[in-house]
Amino acid sequence: MTTAVVLLSGGLDSATALAVAKDRGHACHALTFRYGQRHSVELEAAARVTAALGVVEHRFVDVDLRAMGGSALTDDAIEVPRPNEVGAEGSEIPVTYVPARNTIFLSYALGYAEVVGARDIVIGVNSLDYSGYPDCRPVFVEAFERLANLATKAGVEGDRFHVRAPLIQMTKAEIIRLGASLGVDYAMTHSCYDPAPVGGACGACDSCSLRRRGFEAAGLPDPTLYA
Amino acid sequence: MTTAVVLLSGGLDSATALAVAKDRGHACHALTFRYGQRHSVELEAAARVTAALGVVEHRFVDVDLRAMGGSALTDDAIEVPRPNEVGAEGSEIPVTYVPARNTIFLSYALGYAEVVGARDIVIGVNSLDYSGYPDCRPVFVEAFERLANLATKAGVEGDRFHVRAPLIQMTKAEIIRLGASLGVDYAMTHSCYDPAPVGGACGACDSCSLRRRGFEAAGLPDPTLYA
Repeated sequence: MTTAVVLLSGGLDSATALAVAKDRGHACHALTFRYGQRHSVELEAAARVTAALGVVEHRFVDVDLRAMGGSALTDDAIEVPRPNEVGAEGSEIPVTYVPARNTIFLSYALGYAEVVGARDIVIGVNSLDYSGYPDCRPVFVEAFERLANLATKAGVEGDRFHVRAPLIQMTKAEIIRLGASLGVDYAMTHSCYDPAPVGGACGACDSCSLRRRGFEAAGLPDPTLYA
Repeated sequence: MTTAVVLLSGGLDSATALAVAKDRGHACHALTFRYGQRHSVELEAAARVTAALGVVEHRFVDVDLRAMGGSALTDDAIEVPRPNEVGAEGSEIPVTYVPARNTIFLSYALGYAEVVGARDIVIGVNSLDYSGYPDCRPVFVEAFERLANLATKAGVEGDRFHVRAPLIQMTKAEIIRLGASLGVDYAMTHSCYDPAPVGGACGACDSCSLRRRGFEAAGLPDPTLYA
């Protein structure tokens, strides 16, 4: 049984990625970031997911992305867009993009992996329903793997790291079907960028729309609680 | 005048890198990390350096490397070696190596650069006197620059980032001569991995040895206060 570090946000995709890593026989260390996100109920979702699926260790790390601003997800001065608003749809990179987020997250995962002896790093990005984020593309994941093996003692010594993005070529519906087949209870997960203060997903942000359409296309009941 | 983000530890090299960036005409944003390092007097040194050289902004970011352990610089259970101890010299990667440190630092610098509109990221690594750290080599810096342009909105839109390592091919003596010619007061900087509780450099760790020999080779007085 080899060890893997799995990035876990508490959302639908990363919960599925964890289930896939476990199904592939990895002993998993989950890594979750507190980065000043508006949707911090994600963190509670991440804890529910690891309790349900089982991990060797679940580590929470504070990363101060809010201090840098520049994103609707971390900066209160920028509103989370709804798809019916100007600029929220289409192929443009949206305001919910957080500068260098996955680069920072993978960097921590790399350090953690080297310390615990893991050589697989698992991230639940996907490039089809990826909302236009540059750091969710296969070319980004490949470039990070290359960097990882130049940056580290283990990599230089020939004990190579692999960055796994098992969902990267899947549609949301395919991800949901896969996760359901592996026993993921999506009621535990949280995807909304802009949850209601009393709890419940907004149902209108990009992330809610993708998730909702994913369950429809998968032909599975959507367990999400909408506000 | 173009904007640059400069990684500044408070040590001799990064202070010189900042002076070089200023000399090249950049408006500089300095970025310093609090990462649970034993030698936190570095942080005070960094503040002295930016006060003396002048920057647009000096930002301090907390990064929790200590939680991961695995290095003599962040883990109290691992002793900082002295050169006369077994395993401290030679070409091996030393126990002061911090897993993924420069990858994490450059990732933050990338996010910060994107937010403030900087396209140059300056890091004071050097590959000659680099103590065997894999993430101080030219091949690492090049791989990070490549990643940066795949990871970010700016990079994808063709507004490319450049990672500058102006000291990477220089000896410590050359760095010291260069910095002195640019007006860096090295008395403000701090290099020791294991400073005395009452202040003052140990004079014996790898970093002190490199620094001390650098001043000797440069033919310049060493302003370091040794304990």
